[in-house]
Amino acid sequence: MRIDHLGIAVADLEQALESYRALGLEPTGSEEVPEQRVTVTFLPIGESKLELLCPTGPEGPIAKFLADGKKGLHHVALAVDDIEAALEKARQAGLRLIDERPRRGAGGALIAFVHPASTAGVLIELCQRKGSH
Amino acid sequence: MRIDHLGIAVADLEQALESYRALGLEPTGSEEVPEQRVTVTFLPIGESKLELLCPTGPEGPIAKFLADGKKGLHHVALAVDDIEAALEKARQAGLRLIDERPRRGAGGALIAFVHPASTAGVLIELCQRKGSH
Repeated sequence: MRIDHLGIAVADLEQALESYRALGLEPTGSEEVPEQRVTVTFLPIGESKLELLCPTGPEGPIAKFLADGKKGLHHVALAVDDIEAALEKARQAGLRLIDERPRRGAGGALIAFVHPASTAGVLIELCQRKGSH
Repeated sequence: MRIDHLGIAVADLEQALESYRALGLEPTGSEEVPEQRVTVTFLPIGESKLELLCPTGPEGPIAKFLADGKKGLHHVALAVDDIEAALEKARQAGLRLIDERPRRGAGGALIAFVHPASTAGVLIELCQRKGSH
């Protein structure tokens, strides 16, 4: 396994990029994810990425997160080879799933979220990249 | 660069371990860090680790974090080869540092924290492992 990415909620993308550049990280691209109402900017780091999640409007989970006075670390995505098997294992262990079935995320990955109530307060995304299964 | 570890604040270590086991992660050991008033349990994942931070008493930054009603993702540590150079670069870029000088963290690493006000709300630890410089 590996950490696929860390999702970070940002209100001011340019300011965030300036800070992360000062730490040695460079963005390689961005993608709009309309169903989540965010623009996602990717900063590769080793085998992982930071994903800066910036709302495109007042709706959507990231806009709500920021409106609630939160910011910064939002979720951690774990790369899995077989998301159906990972979901089944989580289900059998009694974890509460936000997504009972995988859906499409940024970059065409198959993703599913596990509820933070089941994972010590951490919002965890399971993420199966194309070609990994 | 790589993500050295993700720090996760947990009130109930056994419950957290049960959840992470269900996601395929296994602890490899733990260490008490008296100056932070925590027990740190390590769950390797690829080139990184999750570090479950459990307070050993009512004092310390993690106990305070939990007492404030927060839980889960606490900080992200970036592995650097030369922490002095990384701190100098951050300082020159105007980032606010919590630690002006490196100090010793878990596992004997040299660490220094950057203030989340400078990094889009994310508490970032710079971390130089022994033998990496």
